[in-house]
Amino acid sequence: MTIRVALGVSYRGEPYKGWQSQSGGGTVQDALETALTQFAAHPVRTICAGRTDAGVHGLNQVVHFDAEVERDPFSWIRGSNRYLPADIAIQWCEFPGADFHARFDARGRRYAYLLRESVVRPAIESGSCGWVFRPLDGDAMRAAAALLVGEHDFSSFRSAECQAKSPIKQLRSIHIKKQGAYWRFEFDATAFLHHMVRNLMGCLIAVGTGTRSVEWISEVLAAKDRRVAAPTFAPDGLYFVGPYYDAHLNLPEHVAALDWLPGA
Amino acid sequence: MTIRVALGVSYRGEPYKGWQSQSGGGTVQDALETALTQFAAHPVRTICAGRTDAGVHGLNQVVHFDAEVERDPFSWIRGSNRYLPADIAIQWCEFPGADFHARFDARGRRYAYLLRESVVRPAIESGSCGWVFRPLDGDAMRAAAALLVGEHDFSSFRSAECQAKSPIKQLRSIHIKKQGAYWRFEFDATAFLHHMVRNLMGCLIAVGTGTRSVEWISEVLAAKDRRVAAPTFAPDGLYFVGPYYDAHLNLPEHVAALDWLPGA
Repeated sequence: MTIRVALGVSYRGEPYKGWQSQSGGGTVQDALETALTQFAAHPVRTICAGRTDAGVHGLNQVVHFDAEVERDPFSWIRGSNRYLPADIAIQWCEFPGADFHARFDARGRRYAYLLRESVVRPAIESGSCGWVFRPLDGDAMRAAAALLVGEHDFSSFRSAECQAKSPIKQLRSIHIKKQGAYWRFEFDATAFLHHMVRNLMGCLIAVGTGTRSVEWISEVLAAKDRRVAAPTFAPDGLYFVGPYYDAHLNLPEHVAALDWLPGA
Repeated sequence: MTIRVALGVSYRGEPYKGWQSQSGGGTVQDALETALTQFAAHPVRTICAGRTDAGVHGLNQVVHFDAEVERDPFSWIRGSNRYLPADIAIQWCEFPGADFHARFDARGRRYAYLLRESVVRPAIESGSCGWVFRPLDGDAMRAAAALLVGEHDFSSFRSAECQAKSPIKQLRSIHIKKQGAYWRFEFDATAFLHHMVRNLMGCLIAVGTGTRSVEWISEVLAAKDRRVAAPTFAPDGLYFVGPYYDAHLNLPEHVAALDWLPGA
């Protein structure tokens, strides 16, 4: 008799080699599974909604696994958090039913990118924020973003190591706003290709600084060729906000850390 | 022929043993002076507006020193930042005249404390934010704060190692606001005693959780005895916002990082 458990997990990406478990350890998944295994007292392997790269942060990453022990939700949270490092913590626990799948059931995913625009470099937000020293034109970036929204072949924004079956994704929205020195870019899509948000950021910034025109974005999209796009932007400011599911599953889409970031 | 240089410096406190230089190194002052010495090509010793403890962050720390070389302000910033670690960076440079003294000329200092209120612990803001798991009563804390504002003998909020000549300080204001899960406390005073903000936070939180009454704050103040106050609260959420000077000096009081924090 097992019970399917769903967890929402927040983590800082900076000190880790990305989400996915590696033989040498040092990933977020390794730390999480070690903690869950200690608390459950049986081996736990998790499946997540979206793997994140080295340096990329997670706000509401969702995972599922099958537990062989019965614990109430708050025991899973508090009990497992005791075994996790300070920069990884389970935020919620639900029992969504035996059929729930964190990855396949996700109807979409949200990412945010935080970017500081200033002539001097960041310090306190180092590792938590991208940086541009040239002023950005918000209207030009919004016009470029509008050309990217919709169902497209995003091959130009896909890394060579991408394992996705199809490069065709539905990019539902891009919102761009500014608070003081900080830009906040919000992306919502069915799913994202490997490096897709960082490649989109590289291109939007090229338009924002005036290095490229708004129309150039359409050329990049049409080329379906990674070599025509701008370089992949830094992981520092990238946050996996989290997946979202059918409303009847009633899984939390908001965690406290969402209010931590500028522009919340 | 020397020129007095004033700098605004931002830094993360977490990885450092506080501001003040130590024989073993590992402090923010050590890192800053090493960088300035490399750029200036002569030994540089700095004087700061307010020393911060281990783990306490600086947003607009102000220092002065005498340079034996002539460089324009942006060269000082960019040239020295090259030699600084990613979590320390000079934000501005001014030449306020040979008489300027970063510490003695400060008319006051501002601190902010960020606090997360949630049943689960933080992760991405680990080291950058305090945490309480019990709900806080904002009105009670504001009433307690009102009793602390003014000129008082703050001996009850002073650590045993405090080197200040007098425990009497003018606490000009305390502002308390909330954004989502995050409380932001803002303190403005002529100067602060050692551990004063962290001791004030311990007491305000004791009132906020209902452990202590609002009136208890007056008893603590009147006792002039550290032993009656609440325990010193964690340094994690403490930010030295910076000093302020006479307006004619025209030194920047706002740096980009101020917009990074919740409640900005």
